[in-house]
Amino acid sequence: MKVGVDYYPEHWDRALWEQDAQRMHEAGITIVRLAEFAWSRLEPTEGNFDFDWLDQAISVFARHGIGVVLGTPTATPPVWLTHSYPDVLPVDNKEHAHYPGVRLHRCYNSPSLRLYGERIIDRLTRRYGSNPAVIGWQTDNELAANDCHCEYCTRGFRSWLKTKYETLDNLNREWGTVVWSGEYSDWMQVHTPLGGSPHLNPSFLLDFRRFSSDSVAAFNRFQAEIIRRNSPGKFVTHNLWGYPVTADYYDMFESMDFASVDYYPATDLVDDSKSKMYHGALTLDLTRGVKRKNFWVMEQLSGTPGCWYPMSRTPFPGMIRAYAWQSVSRGADAVVQFRWRSARIGAEQFWHGLLDHHGVPGRRFDEFVQFSSEVNRLAPLLEGTTLEHEAAMLFSHEQLNALQIQPQADGFDYLGNFKRLHSALLRIGVGTDVINWRDDFAKYKLVVAPMLYLIDQDMAANLRAYVEQGGTLVLTTRSGVKNMDNVCLPGRLPNLLSDLTGAIVDEYDPVGKDRQRIKFESLESEGSGGFECSQWCDILSPGTAHTVATYSSEYFAGRAAVTKNTCGAGTVYYIGTILDDAANKALFGRVAEDLHLDYMPNLPEGVETAVRRSSATRLRFLLNLTKEPKSIALDCREWKSALTGVHSRGGNLELAPGGVEILVD
Amino acid sequence: MKVGVDYYPEHWDRALWEQDAQRMHEAGITIVRLAEFAWSRLEPTEGNFDFDWLDQAISVFARHGIGVVLGTPTATPPVWLTHSYPDVLPVDNKEHAHYPGVRLHRCYNSPSLRLYGERIIDRLTRRYGSNPAVIGWQTDNELAANDCHCEYCTRGFRSWLKTKYETLDNLNREWGTVVWSGEYSDWMQVHTPLGGSPHLNPSFLLDFRRFSSDSVAAFNRFQAEIIRRNSPGKFVTHNLWGYPVTADYYDMFESMDFASVDYYPATDLVDDSKSKMYHGALTLDLTRGVKRKNFWVMEQLSGTPGCWYPMSRTPFPGMIRAYAWQSVSRGADAVVQFRWRSARIGAEQFWHGLLDHHGVPGRRFDEFVQFSSEVNRLAPLLEGTTLEHEAAMLFSHEQLNALQIQPQADGFDYLGNFKRLHSALLRIGVGTDVINWRDDFAKYKLVVAPMLYLIDQDMAANLRAYVEQGGTLVLTTRSGVKNMDNVCLPGRLPNLLSDLTGAIVDEYDPVGKDRQRIKFESLESEGSGGFECSQWCDILSPGTAHTVATYSSEYFAGRAAVTKNTCGAGTVYYIGTILDDAANKALFGRVAEDLHLDYMPNLPEGVETAVRRSSATRLRFLLNLTKEPKSIALDCREWKSALTGVHSRGGNLELAPGGVEILVD
Amino acid sequence: MKVGVDYYPEHWDRALWEQDAQRMHEAGITIVRLAEFAWSRLEPTEGNFDFDWLDQAISVFARHGIGVVLGTPTATPPVWLTHSYPDVLPVDNKEHAHYPGVRLHRCYNSPSLRLYGERIIDRLTRRYGSNPAVIGWQTDNELAANDCHCEYCTRGFRSWLKTKYETLDNLNREWGTVVWSGEYSDWMQVHTPLGGSPHLNPSFLLDFRRFSSDSVAAFNRFQAEIIRRNSPGKFVTHNLWGYPVTADYYDMFESMDFASVDYYPATDLVDDSKSKMYHGALTLDLTRGVKRKNFWVMEQLSGTPGCWYPMSRTPFPGMIRAYAWQSVSRGADAVVQFRWRSARIGAEQFWHGLLDHHGVPGRRFDEFVQFSSEVNRLAPLLEGTTLEHEAAMLFSHEQLNALQIQPQADGFDYLGNFKRLHSALLRIGVGTDVINWRDDFAKYKLVVAPMLYLIDQDMAANLRAYVEQGGTLVLTTRSGVKNMDNVCLPGRLPNLLSDLTGAIVDEYDPVGKDRQRIKFESLESEGSGGFECSQWCDILSPGTAHTVATYSSEYFAGRAAVTKNTCGAGTVYYIGTILDDAANKALFGRVAEDLHLDYMPNLPEGVETAVRRSSATRLRFLLNLTKEPKSIALDCREWKSALTGVHSRGGNLELAPGGVEILVD
Repeated sequence: MKVGVDYYPEHWDRALWEQDAQRMHEAGITIVRLAEFAWSRLEPTEGNFDFDWLDQAISVFARHGIGVVLGTPTATPPVWLTHSYPDVLPVDNKEHAHYPGVRLHRCYNSPSLRLYGERIIDRLTRRYGSNPAVIGWQTDNELAANDCHCEYCTRGFRSWLKTKYETLDNLNREWGTVVWSGEYSDWMQVHTPLGGSPHLNPSFLLDFRRFSSDSVAAFNRFQAEIIRRNSPGKFVTHNLWGYPVTADYYDMFESMDFASVDYYPATDLVDDSKSKMYHGALTLDLTRGVKRKNFWVMEQLSGTPGCWYPMSRTPFPGMIRAYAWQSVSRGADAVVQFRWRSARIGAEQFWHGLLDHHGVPGRRFDEFVQFSSEVNRLAPLLEGTTLEHEAAMLFSHEQLNALQIQPQADGFDYLGNFKRLHSALLRIGVGTDVINWRDDFAKYKLVVAPMLYLIDQDMAANLRAYVEQGGTLVLTTRSGVKNMDNVCLPGRLPNLLSDLTGAIVDEYDPVGKDRQRIKFESLESEGSGGFECSQWCDILSPGTAHTVATYSSEYFAGRAAVTKNTCGAGTVYYIGTILDDAANKALFGRVAEDLHLDYMPNLPEGVETAVRRSSATRLRFLLNLTKEPKSIALDCREWKSALTGVHSRGGNLELAPGGVEILVD
Repeated sequence: MKVGVDYYPEHWDRALWEQDAQRMHEAGITIVRLAEFAWSRLEPTEGNFDFDWLDQAISVFARHGIGVVLGTPTATPPVWLTHSYPDVLPVDNKEHAHYPGVRLHRCYNSPSLRLYGERIIDRLTRRYGSNPAVIGWQTDNELAANDCHCEYCTRGFRSWLKTKYETLDNLNREWGTVVWSGEYSDWMQVHTPLGGSPHLNPSFLLDFRRFSSDSVAAFNRFQAEIIRRNSPGKFVTHNLWGYPVTADYYDMFESMDFASVDYYPATDLVDDSKSKMYHGALTLDLTRGVKRKNFWVMEQLSGTPGCWYPMSRTPFPGMIRAYAWQSVSRGADAVVQFRWRSARIGAEQFWHGLLDHHGVPGRRFDEFVQFSSEVNRLAPLLEGTTLEHEAAMLFSHEQLNALQIQPQADGFDYLGNFKRLHSALLRIGVGTDVINWRDDFAKYKLVVAPMLYLIDQDMAANLRAYVEQGGTLVLTTRSGVKNMDNVCLPGRLPNLLSDLTGAIVDEYDPVGKDRQRIKFESLESEGSGGFECSQWCDILSPGTAHTVATYSSEYFAGRAAVTKNTCGAGTVYYIGTILDDAANKALFGRVAEDLHLDYMPNLPEGVETAVRRSSATRLRFLLNLTKEPKSIALDCREWKSALTGVHSRGGNLELAPGGVEILVD
Repeated sequence: MKVGVDYYPEHWDRALWEQDAQRMHEAGITIVRLAEFAWSRLEPTEGNFDFDWLDQAISVFARHGIGVVLGTPTATPPVWLTHSYPDVLPVDNKEHAHYPGVRLHRCYNSPSLRLYGERIIDRLTRRYGSNPAVIGWQTDNELAANDCHCEYCTRGFRSWLKTKYETLDNLNREWGTVVWSGEYSDWMQVHTPLGGSPHLNPSFLLDFRRFSSDSVAAFNRFQAEIIRRNSPGKFVTHNLWGYPVTADYYDMFESMDFASVDYYPATDLVDDSKSKMYHGALTLDLTRGVKRKNFWVMEQLSGTPGCWYPMSRTPFPGMIRAYAWQSVSRGADAVVQFRWRSARIGAEQFWHGLLDHHGVPGRRFDEFVQFSSEVNRLAPLLEGTTLEHEAAMLFSHEQLNALQIQPQADGFDYLGNFKRLHSALLRIGVGTDVINWRDDFAKYKLVVAPMLYLIDQDMAANLRAYVEQGGTLVLTTRSGVKNMDNVCLPGRLPNLLSDLTGAIVDEYDPVGKDRQRIKFESLESEGSGGFECSQWCDILSPGTAHTVATYSSEYFAGRAAVTKNTCGAGTVYYIGTILDDAANKALFGRVAEDLHLDYMPNLPEGVETAVRRSSATRLRFLLNLTKEPKSIALDCREWKSALTGVHSRGGNLELAPGGVEILVD
């Protein structure tokens, strides 16, 4: 377990470095990330390198026992580079090159970026690759797929297509270009989707997103290879930027040792809609799932965010600590706060660090110090612990992209609907892994696979095998709609999954924001309000399946909305609509009960729980991420608080706003 | 009377064609539209033509007794054409050429489009012009005026202006270019309205819209001439796309035999505002008025619309049939459903046809079959029937354009306000023709001429002659404001119409969304709410006119708002504001009563009626286009249902949601 | 005191000129503004000048005793100029040149504009410079800073930066370009802020705004110099266009004799939010402060505004007169109505003048005539009167720009928050000067200096000297944040002002639209609602200061929000949040009472007051700018109405909507 900060020695007088390192050390900090935006200081003009300042900075930290993570600086090509080699700049879908002056202004397929990027990474990793103070590497910064239409991307896309389809005839057929006379008769006619019209062929648009994602994954691999060549034995990671994104993170992290994430939960708790409340936990679960193991938070919220747009609320008292513990609870093995000092210069002056511009420690700093001392104290206990879950959700960048290209109904959003289901599991304390839909999920008791809109025989077979061997699978509406070319399948929905669901979609209605009533056979809503659903209503014809819920509004009142089917040794639920939060919570509570999952049905709204365990220990985290005090009824076992050492048996655990408890068995 | 579908053989395996044609025949279908987007299949590369597949498709349909309407494929120039001859692509007002890849990407003044368009139309019409299976032709698809600024449009606009104004001095004077030093001293300085600023000279902007409209009308005529040369005796039509548009449909259809329309009424009935409710009837009445005779629906709603944007609601049960009958009731002599099968490929996958992707007939298909069997059964009765009305509304693309260029007040919209008046007549069951304002209207008892914002002596004289000979004319606010050059007239409003109104506008207030109260001399509102008006308030000084309504709010309380004037043998109403629906309904109810029009004062909200008649028969249609059952009080005559054969005398007619009745005298 | 109109002889038949001048004379008009958009008539083609028409127009007005103000026509470069010399056109931040066809389409740094602009101004001023009918000059029209990126602006910006920073090293350091590798290594790399991203370096963005402001100020000076050379003894002014703007008006008017403003108060009184209600008074106070003396209204609202956008409400009865008197009351020595006749041609047809298109005088004209006869009658009394105030507010274009570049919180807006404080003073009738923050303010009893976000030692010293000598200073949140390079200062907020406030900001929370409660030690809110604040909350640690108000909501309840400090002989208030209107009014009421300012604590909402005085006379204006009648309690002195001559002692003054009273002691 490590605690760190992001630091920019190049922004501050050298006189401050020593003082800062000393204070970091006192604050319990053991790692620091440096240099990820410093290209213009490392190579001030073409071919003239200056590593002296970085040598000194590293040695200052080394003297205070602080390990260094170095970033490669390719997220900020310097002015001399873009000025002399404008192919570095991405080109938008109106054929207009991006202007430099901010950051992330680089095309991953640019020959100049590859040439000059390779040189600076090579120099950097050769110089520090075996420096004992340097413990590992971060590639670039918050990589995302570009929507780039430059000549190199155009050629790259063409050759990507040639590899995939071999002939134009194949491409024309698979994409269905015959519609609207869009057939290509020469490869030179194939371009990136210029103009950006949403009316463009959806198969074309999806393949371009795949190409763009592959481009950024290749760029990340290109960096990892240079680093590994020059710095063997040191880790290589990358700091991903939340969700949604257009790049496939599973691909992008194949070349990485572990995943890292930049974690900025929403600070405006007052306005928190319920779905926003549970967004952070999903980000952390997704990150853990990228490599299916513990991860790092490379940038952890340390103060008010905001800059070019209005600042958000300051984190409510207790939240700096609580969000840091939340990261640990969901699998972070290092928490690196962004940033030590708030910037005095440049565009991010108001993206606040632990220290304000005046540099005098205040409330937020004190909260951080409380966290770091706690985590350093508990490090031996946390060491080697991981999250081991009985439930998994299958996440798919393919579905995310395809459903962005063709949004199905008013309000329908892949990530939003995914989050709805994930938060149902959070609300009842079911620990859940979020993993790549193409990955192995045989070991789980419960698998939730939402919106498998694109499907192929392999995926259908995997799901079938899982269920037949006794698994419980939850499928949802908009599954089995298309093949992987983004072309509609010719059978009854959910097509290849129909044998699993034991029910077919007789008809559907994209109800959008028209809320509909729904009635469960054996579930009562908590208030008198009843349950609702929206966005989309599949009207189901159960075959072998049993009807779990029926609609009770409009012309489809009485028709099946949710079904349950037995298949081999297993069970398949099909949810033919988008349920409201209460219905999801009730339904998954029943599933958890049936499957004897480890769950907490009475967890108060906004309290999150997670368990880290090893062969030796089991640590249950309970976090109150709301602005109100919460009371949690514990069961009658004896508990011990890892934070305070206090023992208790059953009873109620009281958590103040931002309150954190860690219970050991 | 014909029932048909739109079909795309080029999208489907040939194996399906025979099966589909067979099933169409069984479903009562007698026509099919083909090929309007198939240029890349008819001419896969420049100069290489392939008609074999179309020969076969036509022969399949011919064998099943299904007549073919062929579309010219110019709405989708193929990739080879735009790639080799980029002048085909329109250029936007920032001088940026449109990107191909969707459809409608063609400039009507492009020499290459004219050259290659002529060749493909010529080949197509020569091949099938006298094929007995081909019953007629559709030009292009949903033509609309381009806002194109390419060099050909620029030159074309200049020469259009030279023809109109002869000299730059005339142009400068008529446009008033002296304002802001905009005077031209050389024809080469005259360009299309680049930049698209709404601050540009309104006379200039209106002439450019006229030129753009003339360009598309000329393009349509160019196609009609080729078709008529090669396919004499077959009809030529075009499928227009609802309202509003920038092209003048009256001009655009001069070269056509009859009008067609693509009819997609709103399916989200739940959210239906009242004005949306009656929008479809206006579209159909406008279409019938384009050529002042019966028309075709070339694309009739068959399922959920939506694609690149979220899908709308699925048509409520009964509505597929009801909307089809609505088309017939308002003058459609053919209803062609869009489309037979929902597309599996391309951008329109979710613009649903009669058959879903799985191809198994369902609820919507069954509703269609009910309609087609009914209409085929009643065909002898419907044959030769037309709509003969005592009332007309005058529609003007000129006013639509001028009022878009200079919106008068917050919420003021030509088409919206036109619809308000039209729906008042619909609500009381007054059959109304909607005709070109320049057309002859002498035969009507009642003429409603809203917002004659641009006026000339000819129009004023036509109206005067109509009234003097005994007609009843309704004029509204924002009449007589400008001359045809979009320049304000120098007299008291309504200027050239003042002798008709017998009242002048003393002052006006663009009240926008500030709702005002209005009180009618002899009309009571149904509830206690009273009547309201908004958008614009003319404060009238009646001269010879009688005051029908006065304002009862703000500083103009007590001043005249609506007047009635006697003029020769006729009567002129002037409505100096935008009345709410209740006021319009009450006012027109009084007018209908005074004029002894055939009307139904107690028609329930959302029920529409229309009468088709011939010398031999009279068919009264009654349609419930709402989601609630409705009850209609019939008068004491004896009726017979053409659908069920049931006789009855007076009493109440009950119509379920989507219910349709056709009564014969 | 003068009353005038704006007139466009070039738009009307010469036959009308004589008639119009005659009618103006009868209406009490003594000045007319001409020719500011007439370049194409003065120089129809390059080098061909035509002054005959203007000679005649001037002589017509001269014959009727109407003095002429001539405008230079550079706001509307003619078509021949932009067509032949496109460098006249500004270039936007995507490197796209503006299209001509409207107005203001000129780059101030364009060599061709300078060349041809100088020639036309030179010719115009030589011809009319000593014409006795011409009383003075207006430069251009509504100058504002361009966001121009043409090659001349690029070069100009580079040389402006070289002058300011001398070396690239200095520039890199002061701007902090090291952030994100933005360091320049060659002057040719420095460009204007292309792309317009808000993420660009804020120091860079602020300097570009300064350069743009300097460019327009230089262009105005360039014009003034030509005019003064050829027309010695005549005044030179410019008509500014309200607030906010990007140009610094204090700089722009250095070369002018006095300020003028185009005054268009909002006419939609019904929807008037309170802050909108007092906006006009702030515009007039700001204008008076530009040169710290009386000013002209060069365009005064005369009717419904609107054109390319929907028209606004017609001015409510009485308001044409009331707004004109409001201008006079706040320091206008001339009121020139825009415009005599409503335009029949061009883009501004619906920006109504005193006369409608029909030219027949109506209600608005009559109101104007009432005003002009009143003002002409009172002219001897008004002559030489000025506004002499005990309070001042410091306005800063620097803060306006810096806070636009980095908005601090949701809803935070420099001008809006400035207006909130100004309207508090308006509500209690405290006459207030609004002056340049860099100007001398020693003479005032009360100085309000809101949001001194950028600060330097000079400004801090000026404020300190003012307070130490007994002044009362009000400072607010977001003061002392940055140095003049837009870089955050390294001390505790408010940094250089901390010794004045005697309190520091312990922590802050950008609460945005989350409204917070606030409680004043000794002020009660009028209703039971209590006071609120929003946008930003400084949590203060008072040192030597006394706490005046504390928060009473959220985690900072009980912490100081407003403080009062004694400093030398003076007092400093620090308002650490954005107070609501009631709190501001109560707080400033207390301050006014403490300082024995001349104020009216019981002024009704929406009634404005001002005093013009000379050694001989004192005129108190009272204006009801609402739609409701208002009653004002006068104190027991004897008053005399300058308008009606009526005397009275104390009692209540009743003002109808739009009512105006002028009381003489």
